[in-house]
Amino acid sequence: MARRNQRTYCLNRPDFMAAAIEQAQYAAARGEVPIGAVIAGNGSILSAAGNRTRELSDPTAHAEILAIRDACRQLGTERLTGYDLYVTLEPCAMCAGAISFARLRRLYFGAEDDKGGAVVNGTRFFSSPICHHAPEVYSGLRELETARMLKSFFKDRR
Amino acid sequence: MARRNQRTYCLNRPDFMAAAIEQAQYAAARGEVPIGAVIAGNGSILSAAGNRTRELSDPTAHAEILAIRDACRQLGTERLTGYDLYVTLEPCAMCAGAISFARLRRLYFGAEDDKGGAVVNGTRFFSSPICHHAPEVYSGLRELETARMLKSFFKDRR
Repeated sequence: MARRNQRTYCLNRPDFMAAAIEQAQYAAARGEVPIGAVIAGNGSILSAAGNRTRELSDPTAHAEILAIRDACRQLGTERLTGYDLYVTLEPCAMCAGAISFARLRRLYFGAEDDKGGAVVNGTRFFSSPICHHAPEVYSGLRELETARMLKSFFKDRR
Repeated sequence: MARRNQRTYCLNRPDFMAAAIEQAQYAAARGEVPIGAVIAGNGSILSAAGNRTRELSDPTAHAEILAIRDACRQLGTERLTGYDLYVTLEPCAMCAGAISFARLRRLYFGAEDDKGGAVVNGTRFFSSPICHHAPEVYSGLRELETARMLKSFFKDRR
């Protein structure tokens, strides 16, 4: 029997969100806005990232963008057909655009973002005529926990 | 007198668009959708990029995103306050979001994009309540030339 050197993840759907929350916690520990994202397919995690805009001096380094870029790099493709994205906060317009370009199958998110969200708030990008691929959207996963994490981060900084 | 080893650009505004068009032409030569972008400030070019989504297997590697990331990396900051972006095509929702996060001062673009543009078409991101910084927008620079470049690229591929 082959030795299992590689760490594998095999989780139920709610636990992918747990992994996204863990990424958000790491982001907070680095002094970044606590948002985390995971891309999963076939029952396992392909990529996971937290927000790194400050560390990288990169305004595009949102958790979703980093997770998408990493997943695409691993697969050598621009398209993540059949893969799902789990993210702790409703994606902004930039990330919603990237999710669409990446052809992600499903989007699961935690808290809604009435100030910057572009999925169920604001420009509702996936329902707009300029969106050419929309994922299935599932909102409100661990909603209270993900919202609380952000609130306490901003409260601590004030 | 110091020798001038460094190539410097000092151009009028219309010529920054010429530099963006040049980037679009390089993109076409690489087999990418011909879109180019330049970030300029204080009379000179800080960064320039063409679309590289295929080459990098990265759906976020639009000309605008690459130019913003490069400019931010050079300055060691997330914010390009006082800098302007020149791009050959109306930005999409993803790029409009990134332009806003980067706090770019002005956006100059060439052709309008009624299928995917999010500035004067579609979700008109900069006028939406989820946009917290909007650049001044100037559209239609070298409109015919930039539109023709895209049309002939897609015609050749059919």
